[in-house]
Amino acid sequence: MSAAVLCIGTELTRGEIVNTNASWLAEELTDRGIEVGAIETIADDRPLIVETLHRLSAKHLVIVCTGGLGPTTDDITSECVAEALGVPLVRDEASLAAIRTRMEKFGRVMAESNKKQADFPTGARVLENRKGTAPGFQVALGHAQASFMPGVPREMKSMFGEQVAPALEPFVKGQMFQVRLKTFGMTESAVNDRLAGIEAEHAVTLAYRAHFPEIEVKVLARGSDCPARARAAADAVIARLGLDVVYGEGDVTFAQQLGKLLVERKLTLGVAESCTGGTVGRLLTERGGASDFFVGGVICYANRVKEGLLGVPAPLLAKHGAVSAPVARSLAQGALAELGSDLGLALTGVAGPSGGTADKPVGLVHFAVASLAGISDRQMVFPGSRTQVRDLAAFAGLSLVRKVLLHGHDA
Amino acid sequence: MSAAVLCIGTELTRGEIVNTNASWLAEELTDRGIEVGAIETIADDRPLIVETLHRLSAKHLVIVCTGGLGPTTDDITSECVAEALGVPLVRDEASLAAIRTRMEKFGRVMAESNKKQADFPTGARVLENRKGTAPGFQVALGHAQASFMPGVPREMKSMFGEQVAPALEPFVKGQMFQVRLKTFGMTESAVNDRLAGIEAEHAVTLAYRAHFPEIEVKVLARGSDCPARARAAADAVIARLGLDVVYGEGDVTFAQQLGKLLVERKLTLGVAESCTGGTVGRLLTERGGASDFFVGGVICYANRVKEGLLGVPAPLLAKHGAVSAPVARSLAQGALAELGSDLGLALTGVAGPSGGTADKPVGLVHFAVASLAGISDRQMVFPGSRTQVRDLAAFAGLSLVRKVLLHGHDA
Repeated sequence: MSAAVLCIGTELTRGEIVNTNASWLAEELTDRGIEVGAIETIADDRPLIVETLHRLSAKHLVIVCTGGLGPTTDDITSECVAEALGVPLVRDEASLAAIRTRMEKFGRVMAESNKKQADFPTGARVLENRKGTAPGFQVALGHAQASFMPGVPREMKSMFGEQVAPALEPFVKGQMFQVRLKTFGMTESAVNDRLAGIEAEHAVTLAYRAHFPEIEVKVLARGSDCPARARAAADAVIARLGLDVVYGEGDVTFAQQLGKLLVERKLTLGVAESCTGGTVGRLLTERGGASDFFVGGVICYANRVKEGLLGVPAPLLAKHGAVSAPVARSLAQGALAELGSDLGLALTGVAGPSGGTADKPVGLVHFAVASLAGISDRQMVFPGSRTQVRDLAAFAGLSLVRKVLLHGHDA
Repeated sequence: MSAAVLCIGTELTRGEIVNTNASWLAEELTDRGIEVGAIETIADDRPLIVETLHRLSAKHLVIVCTGGLGPTTDDITSECVAEALGVPLVRDEASLAAIRTRMEKFGRVMAESNKKQADFPTGARVLENRKGTAPGFQVALGHAQASFMPGVPREMKSMFGEQVAPALEPFVKGQMFQVRLKTFGMTESAVNDRLAGIEAEHAVTLAYRAHFPEIEVKVLARGSDCPARARAAADAVIARLGLDVVYGEGDVTFAQQLGKLLVERKLTLGVAESCTGGTVGRLLTERGGASDFFVGGVICYANRVKEGLLGVPAPLLAKHGAVSAPVARSLAQGALAELGSDLGLALTGVAGPSGGTADKPVGLVHFAVASLAGISDRQMVFPGSRTQVRDLAAFAGLSLVRKVLLHGHDA
């Protein structure tokens, strides 16, 4: 039993946009125990689309397809499916009315070209689009269940989750349950080594998904009692990796989890960031609700901002240089004092690509976290490009705040 | 004449990583006038790989393939190609020595498993890997020229550029020349409408690539005199879109170009950002050399940071609210004064998803740019998610700085 993901669009075969739909759908199918045998991307080309549909439907039981459902002349997915099935297109009046209503809601008038978006191969099951104008549809193509969705990721994801995924139930082998653990601080291979044996012990499958600089560990159990087995295996993973590495479960960010911890303790955070240039602030405010724990920050790029806004003594800068433990500590204390927060995080480093020396190589970052109870500092040398160094440094800085909250300043 | 891109790896068909190689290679081929007919992604499965190679080589003249060249047991691309060709694998001693040397350089000892990375189908042309251990290779597969490269993007891109691209010359129709124009501030369809007729007038092809929130316009000319025609067409594009929209050419960022303008005028910039939370600072410091024009910023998330560090009067905040033109102006003047820069940019808005009101909806952002010569402000309502609003706002803020530099405060 396998599935194929088909993405239709000349903008994809020309490389004009990165195809994120393909990996998203592949992961959704894999998570349901449906093996993805092929992911194909083809141009808006009628004979090619028809031929590909025939070939894929001869080999797979599930086809999920995106793209080619828009109003323009190069959107030809519906007519190609009709040709592959040997049936005519029929207009669905309910879909036509829904498209008109949606466009009027946004102050637009339905164009003649939009009408064809309500045309489907005879016998198709229409899939409603709650996020846009292009409806999708589902047909039986040979022995395969084939679902056609719009290419806009937001519309596709909503349609897949609400209407396509439930229709996949017959293809899912038995019950399944998944726990997603979010980790930071270990490489994928180190995590993999540390978790050796857990799959066999708990009869689960472990999978990894890299979102640099994080690794997500997916614990998947199938069959009887799978929620309890997945939970027990997830707890075993947490025990092996530790709570300093596993920071949360499901759709949460590192900053959100840190924020939760701060809110629970009624504490606020202020930031002084140099080499990361705003990255830490951006991460902390990525999701709504950040004002409950984040007061703000100073991007202290120039030394005179370190001095003027954060009170770092000029002689300290002159003696140790901006990238040093004493300056990181002074910046953290400055953040605490000037921003009026309960905790102050500071980062100062050499992000590269130039500016490194033998003493202070590219990738070197000094961190400090100050509170009324004390101060902690660390230094690390990160590998990779300027962007990678900055992203790793931002996460490592937030990670140090988390460690101070969990273990205090002496840990 | 068409090409196929083949990506091999179960991590891809499981959706564990997003396949950025496919779109990168598709763009490289398209830019050379080689049409990409298909992009396929398949698992590390021997019969499937062999079958796919046969099918693609029967239909395309160029195949570029990534993945499956590593040292582990699931890396089987070389043996599959040998099977498809009906030839044995042979060890290449020069490649073996190169792998050993590279590993020793990084303090590692070559494992037994690495040796198979020096095994190639008989008759293959070896492609050296200057960025990693896995060499690639090129063979004739039926009538197709097939190139096999590692899946690590950095290694693949280097190998493609240095060794595969030159071998594609016979497939490129005549001479070609390309100019890449970077734009911000118009939608893709608006750009497309504004440029109607340029393709015919200058005998060039225009293509668009979206890097939200920017649009890259690629001007491609082929045949005799193509550099001059591409240049003339690019100049026509710039004339139609204007320099407020076209901010640069080639591999430059908006922030870099703005920085160049600031450096030319010996001016520095300081930032006060609220809703963007550090995004503007991160953009300004994305490339090295930012300290030549960027002094730093204040992420003034809490009102007390707006008051304490940037001197916004509490009554002004109370009267107009944090998201207002008067507060944006006060923040910009505060940035100027407190950060000691020549220009101060401020942004304050409602990024969402919650927090919007009838008066101040989600997406509303107020901007101001202050200098010793005066002050400019703007307000905009951006569509989309919290992340999209923040990214659009950050670009729009930098864009206002650019406008003030190009046209002064009264524009």
